[in-house]
Amino acid sequence: MEGSRVSESEGHPYVPRDLHLPGYVPCFLSVSNILSVYVFSSLLLLSLVWIFSGRLMKTTVDRLLMCWLAFTGLTHTIIEGYFVFSPEFFKDRNGFYLAEVWKEYSKADSRYAGRNAAVVGFEGPTAVFVGPACLLAVYAIATEKSYSYILQFSVSLGQLYGIAVYYITGILEGDDFSASLFYYYAYYILANSPWIVIPSIVAIRCWRKICAAF
Amino acid sequence: MEGSRVSESEGHPYVPRDLHLPGYVPCFLSVSNILSVYVFSSLLLLSLVWIFSGRLMKTTVDRLLMCWLAFTGLTHTIIEGYFVFSPEFFKDRNGFYLAEVWKEYSKADSRYAGRNAAVVGFEGPTAVFVGPACLLAVYAIATEKSYSYILQFSVSLGQLYGIAVYYITGILEGDDFSASLFYYYAYYILANSPWIVIPSIVAIRCWRKICAAF
Repeated sequence: MEGSRVSESEGHPYVPRDLHLPGYVPCFLSVSNILSVYVFSSLLLLSLVWIFSGRLMKTTVDRLLMCWLAFTGLTHTIIEGYFVFSPEFFKDRNGFYLAEVWKEYSKADSRYAGRNAAVVGFEGPTAVFVGPACLLAVYAIATEKSYSYILQFSVSLGQLYGIAVYYITGILEGDDFSASLFYYYAYYILANSPWIVIPSIVAIRCWRKICAAF
Repeated sequence: MEGSRVSESEGHPYVPRDLHLPGYVPCFLSVSNILSVYVFSSLLLLSLVWIFSGRLMKTTVDRLLMCWLAFTGLTHTIIEGYFVFSPEFFKDRNGFYLAEVWKEYSKADSRYAGRNAAVVGFEGPTAVFVGPACLLAVYAIATEKSYSYILQFSVSLGQLYGIAVYYITGILEGDDFSASLFYYYAYYILANSPWIVIPSIVAIRCWRKICAAF
């Protein structure tokens, strides 16, 4: 890596401006390219799970849950999993899609590029445990396992705990990691909000189902 | 606070030695005093819950669970709750017991004295949500509520998530916050280990009970 660096430490778009990122290589893809790949592949996945779950004669709620769990499970496993095990993604010079995602998202939260311990501390369990558990929950709903509700509840609680640690540590560390207010609201707040709203709904539903069973 | 400081920043026993703690005041109580108060009040609490749960004709497992949940619930709420809302505990000059606890524990993990964001990020939800939820779980077992198992499962999962964030961020930040190997093993590893072992056992038991109900 040494000796062939495209830009020196302060040549990045992230805040704080003096964040030390030796070897940083700028994004190759445009924002619209990065987002459209994510949106398109997510819609494709949702459509496939919707069709597949329809063939299994599932209820609408179960089909929606399977769509959500497949989408969030793959997001945790693939996108967040790449981040957890790629401390030097900001040096990527091949335009690798997952590195581009994190170069882009770091504009809203430079703790990702800066390898902040609290961020890796909650992304680690999310990618390694919660992600695969979401995919197992899709299977559990499809095959009506007895552990279906408690597993859905577990992943939802894990997601809520993770996002709590994420925002609490963000506030404690100064809440100033965004390149602009646009990135702050569009990515840091808005793009993360489904992981507060949906796990809350799923957790409450599972809680009620489990209470009703006793 | 200014102008009347007992010791200057580097006058503390914590590692790293250059940790900046202006206004630090050393422990007033001895280690044996601090530990004996905690052990004695815990034993008193456990005895009271054990006797009380016996009068309610609970099974041995339920009685042990009530003892554990009362003990861990009060530890989270009182001891960890004090830490979360007392960023300047290391300046305490009155020998206040809870401040002494954290001055002592910081010898094993100076991130507490240093107000590390990841530590406050997991202690916050633990003290504010998990602690009171543990006490509610004691009540739920006593009165045989339908939400008893899912609540016990929730607090156990919260404890396991918290301890995961605690150790992962510790490793990522260099795993070098102990004043000596004695403190590292006695406090950081050994004193925390019940919060790995017991929540795992409780969570597995609740998982099985809930699966059996479906």
